Amino acid sequence: MTLPDRPAIGFIGLGVMGHAMAGHILDAGYRLLVFNRSRGKADDLVERGAEWADTAGLVAAESDVVITMVGYPADVDEVYFGAHGVIAAAKAGAYLVDMTTSSPILARRMAAAASEAGLHALDAPVSGGDVGARNATLTIMVGGEPEDFDAMLPVLKVLGTNVVLQGPAGSGQHTKMANQIAIAGTMIGVVEALAYAQAAALDPETVLASVSVGSAASWTLTNLAPRILAGDFEPGFYVKHFIKDMTIAIDAAHAMGLELPGLELAENLYERVRDLGYADSGAQALWKAYE
Amino acid sequence: MTLPDRPAIGFIGLGVMGHAMAGHILDAGYRLLVFNRSRGKADDLVERGAEWADTAGLVAAESDVVITMVGYPADVDEVYFGAHGVIAAAKAGAYLVDMTTSSPILARRMAAAASEAGLHALDAPVSGGDVGARNATLTIMVGGEPEDFDAMLPVLKVLGTNVVLQGPAGSGQHTKMANQIAIAGTMIGVVEALAYAQAAALDPETVLASVSVGSAASWTLTNLAPRILAGDFEPGFYVKHFIKDMTIAIDAAHAMGLELPGLELAENLYERVRDLGYADSGAQALWKAYE
Repeated sequence: MTLPDRPAIGFIGLGVMGHAMAGHILDAGYRLLVFNRSRGKADDLVERGAEWADTAGLVAAESDVVITMVGYPADVDEVYFGAHGVIAAAKAGAYLVDMTTSSPILARRMAAAASEAGLHALDAPVSGGDVGARNATLTIMVGGEPEDFDAMLPVLKVLGTNVVLQGPAGSGQHTKMANQIAIAGTMIGVVEALAYAQAAALDPETVLASVSVGSAASWTLTNLAPRILAGDFEPGFYVKHFIKDMTIAIDAAHAMGLELPGLELAENLYERVRDLGYADSGAQALWKAYE
Repeated sequence: MTLPDRPAIGFIGLGVMGHAMAGHILDAGYRLLVFNRSRGKADDLVERGAEWADTAGLVAAESDVVITMVGYPADVDEVYFGAHGVIAAAKAGAYLVDMTTSSPILARRMAAAASEAGLHALDAPVSGGDVGARNATLTIMVGGEPEDFDAMLPVLKVLGTNVVLQGPAGSGQHTKMANQIAIAGTMIGVVEALAYAQAAALDPETVLASVSVGSAASWTLTNLAPRILAGDFEPGFYVKHFIKDMTIAIDAAHAMGLELPGLELAENLYERVRDLGYADSGAQALWKAYE
């Protein structure tokens, strides 16, 4: 199936990420329909020409492509399968693209339900954070059928620069999990290195001059260690969302018979950080587990 | 104290790293004396003009600067404090530079003994591996007195590009420990991400295309993940040496009242890898703990 000349794109979920992404869809000249749990976040998009719809289903009923960027797997489930949900309401042949970081199992269930209803589903979670969303430089990891990926590529290219088909339904979510697992270990290493440096009465900034290049180098060390040293725990990426991701990854790993002790340790440490009151801080707040 | 016009430099320990480093000292025009447990490794350096000495003490007796690059803290102890050791034999006012990755406590003990004997000691472990040693691009992390650091800087610049004084005696070793702690966590993250990707039946090379850029990026992911996927476990950095470093770091952390669960997990996993027969493989062989 090919899209009409000026496809209508529905965007559901206008948080920090979704809001910036929906804006790019609008700027690219698509017709844009939007829905969000709290309507206020849509106001400026509506001023710029987006059309508000009162439920996810009403967005879907008018859209050739439905993009979702919500919070938790339970929200994804609700948006697609709940009352006024997307699957029941979508137009025949529509494309459904879930960009939430969510469960690979749910992604496969969505894809199966979509296929049964004559719809096309992709799971397409992203990395790159609020900056990547704002600058349309996201990495987008896609699971689904190659022909559906090809059909959606022009739309996804509006949002990101590194758009890769990883395999069948669920593979986008699995790839995002691999990404989060790598970050979890790296974050432990960086925070423990700083905790050690502090305990040894070293000057941490001078330590970074020695360790930020070479084989200890990482995005985390370069970008988050200086924030920790500056006492800046503002969220780029929320602790509560990282815990969600790690929980999904641990469950998925267990379902595959895989033990990942580093990931489980990271998840435990982040639960401690959350319990200390830092759920809405940035992931660099892992530091609080060591202070 | 200033060095003579053409100082004699003694180099003790001609393994993969030390051999390349000693060669640079020779190329820079210094008089070079060498000692190594197995003499054969000195042959080509002697052909190029280095002078062989039969013990560490005999090297020290002729040298204005003594550099050591040996294996384990026990070797450092033996070279400096053993029979025919450096401290007892060194010329008055000589500089002693231990570049082995070793214990911060031993580094402070060396510095105290050196000072008592009218000698100058620096701990100056490196990162950058065999490639850094060969290309003289090592990162050198130095602990000791500022005036001793200044005196040795011209010599250290022959061996590395990123030479930083980190603080008093022991601070070079502490900084190297921070470096190894960061690597340990990152390595766990990278290996667990690959193990997850494999279990999820993703194509790991394609996964790397999505996760090697962005916030999961690290030297380890870029340089060692492809080696793991290629089944290449050849050593850049030995498992057995990494275990040594992590053991030193754990002991030092405990002595400072610090718990580093990520580091302890990594050390346990690497012990398992060693027990599987991979002590002489590269650090990327952590993969063997998950296979």
